[in-house]
Amino acid sequence: MKEFWSKKAQTLTPYVAGEQPAIKNLIKLNTNENPYPPSPKAVEAVRNFDASKLALYPRTDGGVFRSAVAKYHGVDEKNVFCSNGSDEVLGFAFQAFFDKNVCTPSVGYSFYPVWAELFDIDMKFVPMNDDFSINIEQFCGNGAVIANPNAPTGIALNLQQIEQILAQTDGVVIIDEAYVDFGAHSALSLLSKHKNLVVTRTLSKGHSLAGIRMGYALAHEHLITALECVKDSFNSYPTDMLAQEISAQAILDTQYHRENCEKIIKTREFVSNRMQELGFDVLPSSANFIFAEHKVLRAEVIYAKLREQGILVRHFKAKGIDNFLRITIGLREDMERMLEILV
Amino acid sequence: MKEFWSKKAQTLTPYVAGEQPAIKNLIKLNTNENPYPPSPKAVEAVRNFDASKLALYPRTDGGVFRSAVAKYHGVDEKNVFCSNGSDEVLGFAFQAFFDKNVCTPSVGYSFYPVWAELFDIDMKFVPMNDDFSINIEQFCGNGAVIANPNAPTGIALNLQQIEQILAQTDGVVIIDEAYVDFGAHSALSLLSKHKNLVVTRTLSKGHSLAGIRMGYALAHEHLITALECVKDSFNSYPTDMLAQEISAQAILDTQYHRENCEKIIKTREFVSNRMQELGFDVLPSSANFIFAEHKVLRAEVIYAKLREQGILVRHFKAKGIDNFLRITIGLREDMERMLEILV
Repeated sequence: MKEFWSKKAQTLTPYVAGEQPAIKNLIKLNTNENPYPPSPKAVEAVRNFDASKLALYPRTDGGVFRSAVAKYHGVDEKNVFCSNGSDEVLGFAFQAFFDKNVCTPSVGYSFYPVWAELFDIDMKFVPMNDDFSINIEQFCGNGAVIANPNAPTGIALNLQQIEQILAQTDGVVIIDEAYVDFGAHSALSLLSKHKNLVVTRTLSKGHSLAGIRMGYALAHEHLITALECVKDSFNSYPTDMLAQEISAQAILDTQYHRENCEKIIKTREFVSNRMQELGFDVLPSSANFIFAEHKVLRAEVIYAKLREQGILVRHFKAKGIDNFLRITIGLREDMERMLEILV
Repeated sequence: MKEFWSKKAQTLTPYVAGEQPAIKNLIKLNTNENPYPPSPKAVEAVRNFDASKLALYPRTDGGVFRSAVAKYHGVDEKNVFCSNGSDEVLGFAFQAFFDKNVCTPSVGYSFYPVWAELFDIDMKFVPMNDDFSINIEQFCGNGAVIANPNAPTGIALNLQQIEQILAQTDGVVIIDEAYVDFGAHSALSLLSKHKNLVVTRTLSKGHSLAGIRMGYALAHEHLITALECVKDSFNSYPTDMLAQEISAQAILDTQYHRENCEKIIKTREFVSNRMQELGFDVLPSSANFIFAEHKVLRAEVIYAKLREQGILVRHFKAKGIDNFLRITIGLREDMERMLEILV
């Protein structure tokens, strides 16, 4: 009984975000958050912020953050679109560019089919190869969206594969680079050649700012205009004044960012090797998480055992991946604690 | 030429937000911002915020802010929905509750027809009475949305009129109370009686927090569930961690809020009287702005004269109201400066 709900609302199956439980001393490895705090420059931006300014509306286009993104990537501001987290950027991109026959890997970010349903977009789910790599040959529709590295597998495409998808696709190709900071090759170098390419990014992972909600897209000016058009038909001011300032400071602190990502990559390699020794198959990850299944034990059993010991990882009940666990790479000592339990 | 744009994006005519020009010493009376800074408690929340927490995702439901809203209004948290500004709350509400035959006044908030277009909702624009009051009798559709006080007229409905609209409407009635802090009667007292009522609020006006983007809706639990369902199909984390904390402090500082609103009301009455003496017809406002036309001079001429002198007001070029100016009530001294120019 959904009295008073619109026809559309009645049909929706929403995305389910990872839990944020308020359990003391929990080791939280379930939502791919960064174990290191944000850049000291971002922290200082909060402390120095003149809060009396908050009586005024923020810039509608991301303001100082948009300028910082342009500077960071060496592009023009007109090639940058900012919004409230890369989920929102992706939501707007689905509305702005997709109608039908949009290809996406059958194992991918589970928000994609939710946006497709919300905006009446017809998607084609391309089956994975046996090793969970993406079947490039089958991407030949009126649009495509791929996380690179892919979620939740962590497996990355190379640029040649992305160019092949661009060549085979009639419409826009979105490369969702939420996890690109941890080892994959960015598609940004392809932007000047391909006017149907949209690259999305977030500050939630590599920049330790999941709490502030900031994401952006880079693309040809003509596609940025479409994103602005959809955004301004829904919410003119998606990013707040403080978020703009904090995020600008974070993205320009390139050294801090690079060092943290290197530490996470190093921990990931340590954990992957150790888990293989413990009887897990671990997919080759270029992300800040690993996706692994045990050769003998069921995923639910391991999930429950870890949870009992105060360690939260993610288990998706979807077909084909329901015996895998997705484990965020946290601090080295937290991962060691997890490995002790897995022994 | 809109190559690669979706069919939907090609048809959109976005909302146009008021300008935010970076002109020095500008007296900004064009976007109904509050001339007073946010509550000192909100300012302190920024200063005391532990920014290292920002590496984690925020609560998806508004967290401490949702609790504060429930406390402020004396309702249960399950009757509260929080999102990124009341524009976004309204956008989600349009998706969640409306399909066709949704009534709204022909002079109203100009974002309503934009959401209707974005979400394929069929709206009925009810012509105004000659005095720009709302023609209540004509509200008898499958839904209704009304700003109370209305924008940009500033004219308020009383509770009896709202109950009449509720009785005449088959679906959800949204009362958009963005400007309710400045003298109108809130429809909140009707919530327990009417399970098809949704009341939306913002912290941008009365609470001086336009820069932080926070809005909320109050309604029967069953309608809040629909809003959460649509929200979670678009963006799980619409409000950031800092915004949640700042807004919670602001909304609970009731004395500061009340005092500022009283000052603005007093200034509004002063300005309205003075403008009438200067040859303007001023609609009776219950908001933090006035809507006025001069008996002799064209609105464009006055707009240009004020702008030349560093005062920015809003002029809508829409039919029926194109000889009016919407003037935000600012500081008393800024309004006096404006009146000097109008003499």
